[in-house]
Amino acid sequence: MNVLIVHAHPEPKSFTAAMKEAAFAELTTQGHSVEVSDLYAMKFDPVAKGSDFSTRRNPDYLVYALEQRHAHESGSLAPDIRAEIGKLVRADLIILSFPMYWFSVPAILKGWMDRVLISGLCYGGKRFYDRGGLRGKRMIAAFTLGGSEHMFGPEAIHGEIEVMLRPILRGTFYYVGCDVLPPFVAWHVPYVSEDVRRELLAAYREYLGRIEQMQPLSFPRLEQFDERLNPRQ
Amino acid sequence: MNVLIVHAHPEPKSFTAAMKEAAFAELTTQGHSVEVSDLYAMKFDPVAKGSDFSTRRNPDYLVYALEQRHAHESGSLAPDIRAEIGKLVRADLIILSFPMYWFSVPAILKGWMDRVLISGLCYGGKRFYDRGGLRGKRMIAAFTLGGSEHMFGPEAIHGEIEVMLRPILRGTFYYVGCDVLPPFVAWHVPYVSEDVRRELLAAYREYLGRIEQMQPLSFPRLEQFDERLNPRQ
Repeated sequence: MNVLIVHAHPEPKSFTAAMKEAAFAELTTQGHSVEVSDLYAMKFDPVAKGSDFSTRRNPDYLVYALEQRHAHESGSLAPDIRAEIGKLVRADLIILSFPMYWFSVPAILKGWMDRVLISGLCYGGKRFYDRGGLRGKRMIAAFTLGGSEHMFGPEAIHGEIEVMLRPILRGTFYYVGCDVLPPFVAWHVPYVSEDVRRELLAAYREYLGRIEQMQPLSFPRLEQFDERLNPRQ
Repeated sequence: MNVLIVHAHPEPKSFTAAMKEAAFAELTTQGHSVEVSDLYAMKFDPVAKGSDFSTRRNPDYLVYALEQRHAHESGSLAPDIRAEIGKLVRADLIILSFPMYWFSVPAILKGWMDRVLISGLCYGGKRFYDRGGLRGKRMIAAFTLGGSEHMFGPEAIHGEIEVMLRPILRGTFYYVGCDVLPPFVAWHVPYVSEDVRRELLAAYREYLGRIEQMQPLSFPRLEQFDERLNPRQ
């Protein structure tokens, strides 16, 4: 497999960075080819804007998704976006590696989604969910958070983690057609001992060893909906 | 009331920008005092990083939330963050005004959340949800999207919009203690006629006129959980 790890943490010595290193080591040992986009190290620009396109379909009025589609066809996407799209297209497995900020990804990684997962290539019209443009690839969210595991679940204070992550797992990964594997969650990271951190890293490597056998999460399929995308009776 | 509108759209002539202008006009007419943070116009930097703090509690290892807390107490937060916190503290009502990107906010606005909603002032330890640091304020998400209303709902293809927005409505607005009013959603914006756009703007002004009477969304309260944040029996 070709693997792309998109990593976003401002501290190179962080536990999240150690997870990224562990993933690189484990997947390379398994014989996979691994590329890493370390967004902070790259000083990746997360802001979607008109200058992301060297020529514009409409220079007077920016509709970002339409310009993405046009620029992809005409080869006028900014070089940093083109480079990321190259890695994305090559990858069979994409891992987003991040600390949870506000029950979501840090802004620098949100901007990678906004700018790199372009209309046209990744989705468009009814090309989404199981008909999305990145069908055949797998995506994983692997993240750290301060909260404990008992704070998430059907009766727990923050509800189910998969629901809190719906915009990412279903609204992004599945939207573009990927098989979405269960997330890897490193709970309570700022408060745990070195021993527990070692156990978490070992659990992550073990998780990465099981990827080929994992069942993707289950989401609605377009065939359950009619031409107007209303539920079929 | 003091109102803060945090606006994030890359096109100044966009419908989302027209919504921001309509909100300014309506709320000013009602006698409220309105400040606007137009993040694109301000070239707001959305990336959380060590240089957000002029002095560091720990210069060798960045734990972003701990440095936020320290820097707030010691007055060493970056000037752009301090300016936004000033507006936030003055505001009785905060409106986030944005186009939905990937079922969430654009990266530039996610970065406003990451950098401005600081640990210590807004939350910390068990100061979250109904005990959050911004108790007494109200927050609103007002956004545009390409999808139609029938694509959201319990049986609809994308599920309920409030569930898709959970990280924002519950995980952010309510987390910091705000009363969360029902979002204002401008559906299908790129595809509708000028007449429908005018109707949407009128509906938004009407919505803003009802704010004082609106019931906030209902979320779990900390008293329902014990000291370890497990549900009380």
